[in-house]
Amino acid sequence: MERYDIAIIGTGPAGLSAAITATVRNKKVLLLGPANLSEKVQKAHLIQNYLGLPEISGEGLVKAYQRHLEAMNISVTDARVNAIYSMGSYFGIQASGEIYEADTVILATGVVTGKMLEGEKEFLGRGVSYCATCDAMLYRGKKVAVIGYSKREEAEAEFLAEVVDKLYYFPMYKNEPQLSENIEIVREVPKKIFGTDLVEGLQTNKGEWIVDGIFVLRESISPEQLLGGVELDGVHVKVNLKMETSISGCYACGDITGMPYQYIKAAGQGNVAALSAVEYLAKNKEKKVE
Amino acid sequence: MERYDIAIIGTGPAGLSAAITATVRNKKVLLLGPANLSEKVQKAHLIQNYLGLPEISGEGLVKAYQRHLEAMNISVTDARVNAIYSMGSYFGIQASGEIYEADTVILATGVVTGKMLEGEKEFLGRGVSYCATCDAMLYRGKKVAVIGYSKREEAEAEFLAEVVDKLYYFPMYKNEPQLSENIEIVREVPKKIFGTDLVEGLQTNKGEWIVDGIFVLRESISPEQLLGGVELDGVHVKVNLKMETSISGCYACGDITGMPYQYIKAAGQGNVAALSAVEYLAKNKEKKVE
Repeated sequence: MERYDIAIIGTGPAGLSAAITATVRNKKVLLLGPANLSEKVQKAHLIQNYLGLPEISGEGLVKAYQRHLEAMNISVTDARVNAIYSMGSYFGIQASGEIYEADTVILATGVVTGKMLEGEKEFLGRGVSYCATCDAMLYRGKKVAVIGYSKREEAEAEFLAEVVDKLYYFPMYKNEPQLSENIEIVREVPKKIFGTDLVEGLQTNKGEWIVDGIFVLRESISPEQLLGGVELDGVHVKVNLKMETSISGCYACGDITGMPYQYIKAAGQGNVAALSAVEYLAKNKEKKVE
Repeated sequence: MERYDIAIIGTGPAGLSAAITATVRNKKVLLLGPANLSEKVQKAHLIQNYLGLPEISGEGLVKAYQRHLEAMNISVTDARVNAIYSMGSYFGIQASGEIYEADTVILATGVVTGKMLEGEKEFLGRGVSYCATCDAMLYRGKKVAVIGYSKREEAEAEFLAEVVDKLYYFPMYKNEPQLSENIEIVREVPKKIFGTDLVEGLQTNKGEWIVDGIFVLRESISPEQLLGGVELDGVHVKVNLKMETSISGCYACGDITGMPYQYIKAAGQGNVAALSAVEYLAKNKEKKVE
């Protein structure tokens, strides 16, 4: 299997900054995340304090980012990372059904806003899933609920609908979902996932939906779900000034590391994370040569 | 005397980023440093990893910075900061002969490259000076040496030459100095400052120059000279992730905080330093109200 030097998870300012600096340093980079980049940046009305780009719209900033990626020939692997496993000397990354390998990992997935649903953590892997591509086959011919936190999740729902018997889609956004007729759109607010050993249903503000599986599809998943064992500071990943996490070879940058949530700060931290990863790779290479 | 909320020392990416974020947050900002911004950035040939501005020249980046300052109506006070004094609840800033006051200070002066001269620290204040504007009158009718680390120092030398009896100018750069005829340009390498109680002369690689005062004019002065008592980590100012230094109300950002020396990182840290200062000001205001 192809082994990357640096896998970067996230295509917001932090991840992109890490990717361009790692590329300047001639590293083999895998950049995983939404190919249309950060929805959060895209939606920003006016950004006043991104030094060098005065009074830019979120849309304008995303375009500037895209031009930068094109200028440096960096491509985004459009995938949702479900889990990362530390294998000792390298990392395994499970993303949209594929497994990737990299010597180092940079976490730049942003911060999870909003609380977890009641029962979500408890039933994870026992009926609750974050990845339609990974787990669809487990629900062949069954009933599932999909809770979609952004319009992007509709493609995942369509894919799932081809496999399952019945799909209820709970949009957590205002825009009207554009979905096939066999998908039932439910405008209710999910409150609780219930069951005994396995998931048995979803309770909303209006009633109960009996299902076998519940897909919770958010733009970001929480860092502890992403990479088990990484030390946290509240909901954030704990880092030092070099953007090192508690796991050797794993770095974090941007909103995932804590407040303030600022684009230029995220870009700055991405740069530092990439250079720390480059330094780590050089040291490990020395070790191997010795 | 006018009291500023935040005094920012330095007009490189870190200082400018701090200034624009502090301005967005409606703070009264004093931005001190060279009005033509960072010479280091200006001279950069090609910058590949300033996210959002692909393949930009140093000159282009400085122009983008200037446009940003203009768009936000931020002005630079063109001055060389000689010393900062912590006065307990505020800071006094001595710059080009003026004294300014501010509730908080952000150090963004970059890193001092090159070692101090032998004897420089020992004779500081006893014949060694970093500020022509401040100390010129002490050398009226005397002989002085000026060691200029950049072309910008020539204006300082001209000013000094009007006051002193004889001025020897030691350029530490390649370009030919453009100076009045009464200034003697000496192409020798300063090695050591000598004297007993006071400075008596400058030893170079070729001989000795008997002078009463030696002005060492670098773009940056070392942080411990700038603000006595601030905790260092080697040649850098020690900071945490909030860019707090060991002195309450004083923040640092950019190259002064350590490697890597990167523009986008400096800009990111400047943003964080400004927001930490804003938070500090809000807390102190609460205290005063209580």
